[in-house]
Amino acid sequence: MHIPEKHKDDLQDLLSNASSTLRATSPDLEALLFEPIPILDHGFIRVVDYMGDDAAIVQAARVSYGKGTKKVSEDQGLINYLLRHRHTTPFEMCEIKFHVKMPIFVARQWLRHRTANVNEYSARYSVMDREFYIPAPDQIAAQSTSNNQGRDEVLTGRDAERVLDYLKHDALLTYKHYQEMMNFDDEGNIIDEARPSLARELARMNLPVNFYTQFYWKIDLHNFMHFLSLRADPHAQYEIRIYAEKMLDILKAWAPMTYHAFMEYKMGSTHLSKTATEIIKRRLKGESIDQKSSGLGAREWRELLDIFPEIGE
Amino acid sequence: MHIPEKHKDDLQDLLSNASSTLRATSPDLEALLFEPIPILDHGFIRVVDYMGDDAAIVQAARVSYGKGTKKVSEDQGLINYLLRHRHTTPFEMCEIKFHVKMPIFVARQWLRHRTANVNEYSARYSVMDREFYIPAPDQIAAQSTSNNQGRDEVLTGRDAERVLDYLKHDALLTYKHYQEMMNFDDEGNIIDEARPSLARELARMNLPVNFYTQFYWKIDLHNFMHFLSLRADPHAQYEIRIYAEKMLDILKAWAPMTYHAFMEYKMGSTHLSKTATEIIKRRLKGESIDQKSSGLGAREWRELLDIFPEIGE
Amino acid sequence: MHIPEKHKDDLQDLLSNASSTLRATSPDLEALLFEPIPILDHGFIRVVDYMGDDAAIVQAARVSYGKGTKKVSEDQGLINYLLRHRHTTPFEMCEIKFHVKMPIFVARQWLRHRTANVNEYSARYSVMDREFYIPAPDQIAAQSTSNNQGRDEVLTGRDAERVLDYLKHDALLTYKHYQEMMNFDDEGNIIDEARPSLARELARMNLPVNFYTQFYWKIDLHNFMHFLSLRADPHAQYEIRIYAEKMLDILKAWAPMTYHAFMEYKMGSTHLSKTATEIIKRRLKGESIDQKSSGLGAREWRELLDIFPEIGE
Amino acid sequence: MHIPEKHKDDLQDLLSNASSTLRATSPDLEALLFEPIPILDHGFIRVVDYMGDDAAIVQAARVSYGKGTKKVSEDQGLINYLLRHRHTTPFEMCEIKFHVKMPIFVARQWLRHRTANVNEYSARYSVMDREFYIPAPDQIAAQSTSNNQGRDEVLTGRDAERVLDYLKHDALLTYKHYQEMMNFDDEGNIIDEARPSLARELARMNLPVNFYTQFYWKIDLHNFMHFLSLRADPHAQYEIRIYAEKMLDILKAWAPMTYHAFMEYKMGSTHLSKTATEIIKRRLKGESIDQKSSGLGAREWRELLDIFPEIGE
Repeated sequence: MHIPEKHKDDLQDLLSNASSTLRATSPDLEALLFEPIPILDHGFIRVVDYMGDDAAIVQAARVSYGKGTKKVSEDQGLINYLLRHRHTTPFEMCEIKFHVKMPIFVARQWLRHRTANVNEYSARYSVMDREFYIPAPDQIAAQSTSNNQGRDEVLTGRDAERVLDYLKHDALLTYKHYQEMMNFDDEGNIIDEARPSLARELARMNLPVNFYTQFYWKIDLHNFMHFLSLRADPHAQYEIRIYAEKMLDILKAWAPMTYHAFMEYKMGSTHLSKTATEIIKRRLKGESIDQKSSGLGAREWRELLDIFPEIGE
Repeated sequence: MHIPEKHKDDLQDLLSNASSTLRATSPDLEALLFEPIPILDHGFIRVVDYMGDDAAIVQAARVSYGKGTKKVSEDQGLINYLLRHRHTTPFEMCEIKFHVKMPIFVARQWLRHRTANVNEYSARYSVMDREFYIPAPDQIAAQSTSNNQGRDEVLTGRDAERVLDYLKHDALLTYKHYQEMMNFDDEGNIIDEARPSLARELARMNLPVNFYTQFYWKIDLHNFMHFLSLRADPHAQYEIRIYAEKMLDILKAWAPMTYHAFMEYKMGSTHLSKTATEIIKRRLKGESIDQKSSGLGAREWRELLDIFPEIGE
Repeated sequence: MHIPEKHKDDLQDLLSNASSTLRATSPDLEALLFEPIPILDHGFIRVVDYMGDDAAIVQAARVSYGKGTKKVSEDQGLINYLLRHRHTTPFEMCEIKFHVKMPIFVARQWLRHRTANVNEYSARYSVMDREFYIPAPDQIAAQSTSNNQGRDEVLTGRDAERVLDYLKHDALLTYKHYQEMMNFDDEGNIIDEARPSLARELARMNLPVNFYTQFYWKIDLHNFMHFLSLRADPHAQYEIRIYAEKMLDILKAWAPMTYHAFMEYKMGSTHLSKTATEIIKRRLKGESIDQKSSGLGAREWRELLDIFPEIGE
Repeated sequence: MHIPEKHKDDLQDLLSNASSTLRATSPDLEALLFEPIPILDHGFIRVVDYMGDDAAIVQAARVSYGKGTKKVSEDQGLINYLLRHRHTTPFEMCEIKFHVKMPIFVARQWLRHRTANVNEYSARYSVMDREFYIPAPDQIAAQSTSNNQGRDEVLTGRDAERVLDYLKHDALLTYKHYQEMMNFDDEGNIIDEARPSLARELARMNLPVNFYTQFYWKIDLHNFMHFLSLRADPHAQYEIRIYAEKMLDILKAWAPMTYHAFMEYKMGSTHLSKTATEIIKRRLKGESIDQKSSGLGAREWRELLDIFPEIGE
């Protein structure tokens, strides 16, 4: 369970307190508010607040007095146009705020995105929980031989067991020593009144980066889409990609027109270099092209064929 | 009237469409939503959306599952503490969005603040209205002789008239030529079908910087307070300060605890240099100090006496 | 002449003071330092400082102890890879600083780019020069009928004359009144000791947005390329595009490998939506496609044919 | 030694390659370039590049054509004025770039500062070194009882030993398992050809946050001072404060006038709330004040007496 028992009342309290508002409201996102969506073995995403919707983008783009919306088809057309032509400022007019929980090594990647607001749980101030990430069996994978930053086939049998044993053993041991240095037991009570407690800001340094941290994270819709385009990408590490993929669903509930445009013009789109553009033109005119005549290096040629195998045919 | 007749329906529409929401809601700010607050002769501020309230700051500071609020007195204490000790990230968890209208020369100062989102009315795309700023009689002031960036006594009689005549005459004339270059009359109709219309992106260059522009502006609460501390300051030019002062009222309605802390720890506070701190200490011990013995230059000594005239007594 | 006579000594002084440094140095950019490059009728760009070069990007990407450079071909390959795969942080490790002068309406577009450092000449503090932009005859163009933000054919004869007359007349008149309100003559002397000078921060509001302003502008190489990709684009207004085009030459002198990669992967590249990607694939397989069967709207179909006319053939 | 043997040639190479430049040059900072300054047991700071100096601040503040400098005393006066009155943009015109190495838990605090450029060593791409932070004996301190984020007296004897034993043992053990999961020995050779290597991006999750990471870090002078004011503060954790303190020396070498102003107006300065300002005024007039009559809460009253014990006398 991802919301601790002691916080269930908080959640119930939030869900039972509706107010009346004149602000733009997204009914489908309201239905998702506050509830944690479980990710990995102990992580979650919860939407805790949002500002604006598809109509707010239109309204800002027109610097209008009213709601901005005319007809649904016109709004979708304008949103498509804005995204296609990199008019990014109207998308900055919407904002979303999450409460997220993830392993520290995932948080380290996540927080590279600087155009967001963050308030993280402090291990200087508070005691960390005994919660660490152990990959599911289908995620314990070998180093890729072709990609320095990637994974290959899944480990099995004794090879997988060894990994799991090390990870579990070391997480439990380092946490036990973390507690002993602070002189705390599992209930947070002092173990031995006669000896001092090491400062929390020092003791925490013994914990591995698969321990879970959590933070509030707020970002505008333009930068949110930029985050998703990088982190929902197949090249992103699985442990962060899985968060980004759940967030795509949240985007869809929040601002369906923007989601539609994003999938069409960003996620599913293709970026062709100048030379690759020329190759497509030559091929469309009927020319046969191989890597040698293409003007591309071997790697870029391969990347192009991955997208357009038809060129090589 | 600052909302054009044609937009009154839009406003009415917005004000009559309440929704139910589970989000943090600020009743006093809801009461201000959408209605333009008139500023200068044609400008306004309208709040068009917001996210969060005092409790949201507390909630983020505690990375909590629930509402964050315990008791009112504890919340005020925590907000005071955060602001006093420069823990700024929890304040970034709230956001406010305005529709503002102001003279171009004010907009130029305003938009120096980079940590905000902006969508401005485009004079490349659309035609500018015949709306320009003429100062009220009590604002037509002489150049300060002591401060290169300041004003002195108010001009009167023929001196004031001359200024008003020039400003009005030139604004009307340049606008007339703007229209003629574009071949448009007041109703936006073509004046002479036989001649071409100059591109709007060129014609607009004839308009002085006292013409009004407008934009959507969105900012988080931390950066909003930073903006207010600079622009509601007596050294700010009157024409932007008057906007900031109205925004202080909006802050008070939105997040009264934060407003209280802001007035105590920022707006009304004093910043003492290392040497000035020593002077206070020496004076408290009974030492008599003049500029010579103070260690301060003449200007800084004067600035210190402005705050603490008691030192010189 | 773009550097006032009184500043020629300053320039001479800067150019005659070489120092020894251990820092990365770009000889071709050193040759351009400080000298103003004239743009429009009174504007200019001057490079006043820079940090890093192509090797510094490689060095940062490898978090290396030394220079980073191995072989020229490897460095170019790595820079291409970084740009192609949106690894933008190594490009942020280089920085360039300009002194630029341009009409106010151009500055207004320019300063929308927020991830840069700016210090602008203050018309509150100082007196503006009598310098304003009058377009060259080949730039006085009609409003485009197909593009709300564009220009069409050039105006000629009486139509062009009317525009020039208005622009010149109004600039001279508003400047004359600007001086009279401040009680200053051309030499900056008081005209009439008996009457007060209007505050500069008020008088300046009479000047049109074709008057020149100037500022120091500093930006990192990643954001510089983003700026160039938007402002050297054919859709940008001519008066800012001409600055961006000169800056492309500066980029080439400064970091030639990055320039090469930028022209290949950004400026000359093509972005295809998901549907457009499918159309290319279908066409490569031999299918005949028209707008109706393409799945694209009329406008996007036209945009696609502009790039790949071969699809329609 | 903090630069590995294999990198000494790189360092020698950098130090022997001086170029001629027309750019602003800081001789005292040149003397520090590239050499690592050791911090903690395996960390370091190296300055790898910089842009601008004190004169560049003056030059930008005046938007001048030349060097900006007039007389030394005038330059110091202007820099003081700018810092005192929060005119921050001229300080943004200087930039500095570091190569830094520090424990992961320090890097986590460091990288909260978002207005900087970062390129970090990737543990997805590369193998981490067996380097971890073990505090010196005088830093193994007990949890503060008065401050949730602070330390108290130093641990000694068996108490200190226990901490050191745990930290060393766990770091060595987790690193050993890290290697075994990747199937690598100390020389980076495969241990057992018959079994697969776990992906580096997974294996690294076993390492505690006291392991060292390293990155390139670039920041402008304004934001650098903001960083220093927070991290060289006595409330900052020792392990990051020690880095900030060394950086103060670097600031002094780079831009001595700015350093002087920074120590006078920021580091050594005092910030008084509105109520505290009133208390000083009342006390200067001779009134006796205690906490009750002060209008301050107990905590703020104590904080005020810490700075001005004379008030309570």
